[in-house]
Amino acid sequence: MDYNQIFNKIRKELEKLPHKGKVADYIPELAKIDPDKLGVHLTTIDDQHYCFGDADEKFSIQSIAKVLSLAMAYKQEDEKLWKRVGVEPSGTPFNSLLQLEHDNGKPRNPMINSGALVVCDVLVSYLKNPKEEFLEFVRKVSGIPDLQYSEKIASSERSMSYINTALINLMKYFGNIHNDIEVVMDFYVNLCSIEMTCKELAHTFLFLANDGVNPYSKERIITASKTKRINAIMQLCGFYDQAGDFSFKIGLPGKSGVGGGIVAVHPGKYSIVVWSPRLNKQGNSSKGMEFLEMFTTETKYSIF
Amino acid sequence: MDYNQIFNKIRKELEKLPHKGKVADYIPELAKIDPDKLGVHLTTIDDQHYCFGDADEKFSIQSIAKVLSLAMAYKQEDEKLWKRVGVEPSGTPFNSLLQLEHDNGKPRNPMINSGALVVCDVLVSYLKNPKEEFLEFVRKVSGIPDLQYSEKIASSERSMSYINTALINLMKYFGNIHNDIEVVMDFYVNLCSIEMTCKELAHTFLFLANDGVNPYSKERIITASKTKRINAIMQLCGFYDQAGDFSFKIGLPGKSGVGGGIVAVHPGKYSIVVWSPRLNKQGNSSKGMEFLEMFTTETKYSIF
Amino acid sequence: MDYNQIFNKIRKELEKLPHKGKVADYIPELAKIDPDKLGVHLTTIDDQHYCFGDADEKFSIQSIAKVLSLAMAYKQEDEKLWKRVGVEPSGTPFNSLLQLEHDNGKPRNPMINSGALVVCDVLVSYLKNPKEEFLEFVRKVSGIPDLQYSEKIASSERSMSYINTALINLMKYFGNIHNDIEVVMDFYVNLCSIEMTCKELAHTFLFLANDGVNPYSKERIITASKTKRINAIMQLCGFYDQAGDFSFKIGLPGKSGVGGGIVAVHPGKYSIVVWSPRLNKQGNSSKGMEFLEMFTTETKYSIF
Amino acid sequence: MDYNQIFNKIRKELEKLPHKGKVADYIPELAKIDPDKLGVHLTTIDDQHYCFGDADEKFSIQSIAKVLSLAMAYKQEDEKLWKRVGVEPSGTPFNSLLQLEHDNGKPRNPMINSGALVVCDVLVSYLKNPKEEFLEFVRKVSGIPDLQYSEKIASSERSMSYINTALINLMKYFGNIHNDIEVVMDFYVNLCSIEMTCKELAHTFLFLANDGVNPYSKERIITASKTKRINAIMQLCGFYDQAGDFSFKIGLPGKSGVGGGIVAVHPGKYSIVVWSPRLNKQGNSSKGMEFLEMFTTETKYSIF
Repeated sequence: MDYNQIFNKIRKELEKLPHKGKVADYIPELAKIDPDKLGVHLTTIDDQHYCFGDADEKFSIQSIAKVLSLAMAYKQEDEKLWKRVGVEPSGTPFNSLLQLEHDNGKPRNPMINSGALVVCDVLVSYLKNPKEEFLEFVRKVSGIPDLQYSEKIASSERSMSYINTALINLMKYFGNIHNDIEVVMDFYVNLCSIEMTCKELAHTFLFLANDGVNPYSKERIITASKTKRINAIMQLCGFYDQAGDFSFKIGLPGKSGVGGGIVAVHPGKYSIVVWSPRLNKQGNSSKGMEFLEMFTTETKYSIF
Repeated sequence: MDYNQIFNKIRKELEKLPHKGKVADYIPELAKIDPDKLGVHLTTIDDQHYCFGDADEKFSIQSIAKVLSLAMAYKQEDEKLWKRVGVEPSGTPFNSLLQLEHDNGKPRNPMINSGALVVCDVLVSYLKNPKEEFLEFVRKVSGIPDLQYSEKIASSERSMSYINTALINLMKYFGNIHNDIEVVMDFYVNLCSIEMTCKELAHTFLFLANDGVNPYSKERIITASKTKRINAIMQLCGFYDQAGDFSFKIGLPGKSGVGGGIVAVHPGKYSIVVWSPRLNKQGNSSKGMEFLEMFTTETKYSIF
Repeated sequence: MDYNQIFNKIRKELEKLPHKGKVADYIPELAKIDPDKLGVHLTTIDDQHYCFGDADEKFSIQSIAKVLSLAMAYKQEDEKLWKRVGVEPSGTPFNSLLQLEHDNGKPRNPMINSGALVVCDVLVSYLKNPKEEFLEFVRKVSGIPDLQYSEKIASSERSMSYINTALINLMKYFGNIHNDIEVVMDFYVNLCSIEMTCKELAHTFLFLANDGVNPYSKERIITASKTKRINAIMQLCGFYDQAGDFSFKIGLPGKSGVGGGIVAVHPGKYSIVVWSPRLNKQGNSSKGMEFLEMFTTETKYSIF
Repeated sequence: MDYNQIFNKIRKELEKLPHKGKVADYIPELAKIDPDKLGVHLTTIDDQHYCFGDADEKFSIQSIAKVLSLAMAYKQEDEKLWKRVGVEPSGTPFNSLLQLEHDNGKPRNPMINSGALVVCDVLVSYLKNPKEEFLEFVRKVSGIPDLQYSEKIASSERSMSYINTALINLMKYFGNIHNDIEVVMDFYVNLCSIEMTCKELAHTFLFLANDGVNPYSKERIITASKTKRINAIMQLCGFYDQAGDFSFKIGLPGKSGVGGGIVAVHPGKYSIVVWSPRLNKQGNSSKGMEFLEMFTTETKYSIF
């Protein structure tokens, strides 16, 4: 399929639409981004590449990193991970405390902040040097040997993390955080600080479109069965309280971040990344959602 | 793939497991069912059939009918249907009033009772003889020309419908029910009363595995795009507050009913129906869930 | 204390204030009331009377009747009544279903609609002719021998009772309504339909200011201990989610109705009724609240 | 009235009852208390004293101090205080985050932890040396010139304050905490650490029974009007989700603390303190509640 032609068509349609939403402003460092950036990169599992716009510019992947920490923790913990965090959609915003209180400190799923904090706690428990080892894992998956955390973004985020501090304290109260709060929070803000280009991020997520194997290095990152399950979690929980809307309109498993990135995966085919910093009120990239809806409409591709 | 062989293997494993859960007892007529019934039927879009057990015995499809009323209403209303009902997972039990109150009478999705009642209200608004015309639609989709409502089950359900009466009154208060409550409720209990065999139900749902076209009659039931969207809704909302678990373990769009039936669809491949009346605490067939988990594990098939 | 002088002073101040709020419009018969009516009547336990405005005009007492049905049921059931309904403030609007669902069908207190419906159910269980016997009770307490239900208001209310129908069905589901829903609802809309003047209503509630004894007939309506407890319930729950505000600003036990009436009781001293049909957003008489705040500020009287 | 005789009678009845509940164990220092302590002290506004048991032993007053910080802040801020914190009962446990999230960070009332934290924030904003000046205020009200914070209890509490940390971070997120979280928390744990005997605490609260004037020093602590309003808040909110029960059974404004103390005030008459460390599931002294219920039943005294 000639994705370039489709990209061009969508690009023209998008240019006619007004800009909607606004850049995440609660993290000072993110608020500085040019809101009109737009980049797209699609990589197939047989190494074809299609892209346009600002596809080679680094942006903060933010919550998209939650999928990578989940993969690492799931690989290690197997199914006992689900004693600590659920796999159900939350039906509430990404930072809700309400559900946590109702469920005695067990987050509904690993894609919301509370669940990602528990996943970080799990990793802190079994890794000797959590930050280093996680970075090593992401380097391997992404094929970027010199990847670093962004200290600037991490500290910007740390200064504004009132809700996350509330969430982790509440879970600590319920006994679902085993390590020191400061250590887990530091790990969490670091993993959210990773920066990648659209191209790099598409590469990074390709193993989820390829039954768990990185198609370049041929290395198995995680089993095929766990790959399917991570995709299922993205499908149901990857877009907070807009997960249904994303599935409905786009029909692919995916994950968004407040940096404006969205990654989506078509198992057996490709991974695609869109980056556009203006967010809708659910905290997902506004233009990113529009692009992907047009894309799956044009290609008639979806997992359904 | 030799599904018969896989069925036999799973059957033996299931026989080793203890019976779990209990038959829905809130509807007197359902409480009379033999709890140990077990039937399975798989139909591929190219007309292959695999089955075992009580696959040719009629059972009450109950909430599974919500998918059929949705298809009929969606076809008629197009996207304006979503002004009246959402497409997000509810995160709450199937009969929860809490969410409705919070969202001013707009149900989270059409798979929970409140949403299905709104869909019925939509059909009552535009159909001249709602019950007759819906029955005619199901006859066409299922290929069963003499299909009837079960008056016995409908009246049994009507006598115990306190929660549904609460839901519909609450929505009427918020202005999201346009017709007379009695008329909508009567339509609703009738559509839930339909009885089919596993084989008939698998046939009925095959259009959702075939881009909206009934593979036997070659008739288009609904557009390909709407088919994908109905599948997406089933994936995210078809199992109430166990939707995540079903996606996670089984990885197919599907829908359950308190009669003990579960239908699942693999787009482009097949539809499969399992029937076993004992329900788990979320109201889904306990053995049906186990069967499908083993089945997709064995076949390695899932949409993810 | 010269209440007439105080009344005059407040009256002048009230005239300077803009009209706020609007007449209850969900019951057609109530929507017809002149919104600018204002009546006040204060009766002391030693038979002094102070009034002004439309104090001798009948109005629909609505939820104020909940205190009378509570008195009758509490007298009969003693403390076992509290197995069916609580004594805690609800923290939610008067017609909320949320709390009911959370507490398995046990209403938080008898002053909200759900609690009053349970009290009606209790009365229907032990009274032979509930409507007649309750009317007889109110005739005795009020000293109005020919008091009648208003059939016009009752049927007006019956036609719009979606929320109450939702509430009672939900409680029936949880087993906390023992009688036929239609019968209990009919009793409920009738007791809400009673009409009294400010003077009559002040007289009616005087037993709660006099340790349970009607000071005119010298008849004991209820024990002193139960009188205190009913007053405590009015204090904490009589104004829905504005109960704190009422206690804070006015400092007397009381109860409001959507007909625009408010009754307040100063134990050992008097009962006072204000009637003004415009309601604030919590469903309490807007001017009635202002009047009583000014009144207890002027008199420096409150139970605190 | 011969309170000593009544005390003796109640004491004998209490001895027949089994011990119920358990000592607060989430603060290590409180968990060490002898659970069977029982002390009572009643002081009338005309300087009569009645007591028994461990009335002269110091205990941690904990949340009872919230009334004193409220008095100090209310005196300073007047009615604008209520823009930051409400006066409605919460209908939820003392440490609930749910309500805060729903109300955008405005606590329902100043008697729950979140509300008390906001009151502390208010005091930190306008006091130069918050801890010293508050201590000075309590010394004045209590007549104990050398009163100190208990550093041991404060640091014990600080080590276990996960929920309070969650609450204050959530409010900071919503902009309802103006000062540094650490500073406000330090102030809060200190004021909760104050220790008094039953006698001292009864003395301290006597101004609330005496229209705002300390009857010993004749000093006005706060206006009569504000005194009534603080009493109203205690009545509706002083016992968390057992406030209705306390009003219903005991009928006096009061406040409890997890140290096992309860203070109640009869305006115009007396203040009374009971101390017994075993708590019921709502976090109020189990025997303290029983004692006060028997006491107001025997004396027939209540504000209702």
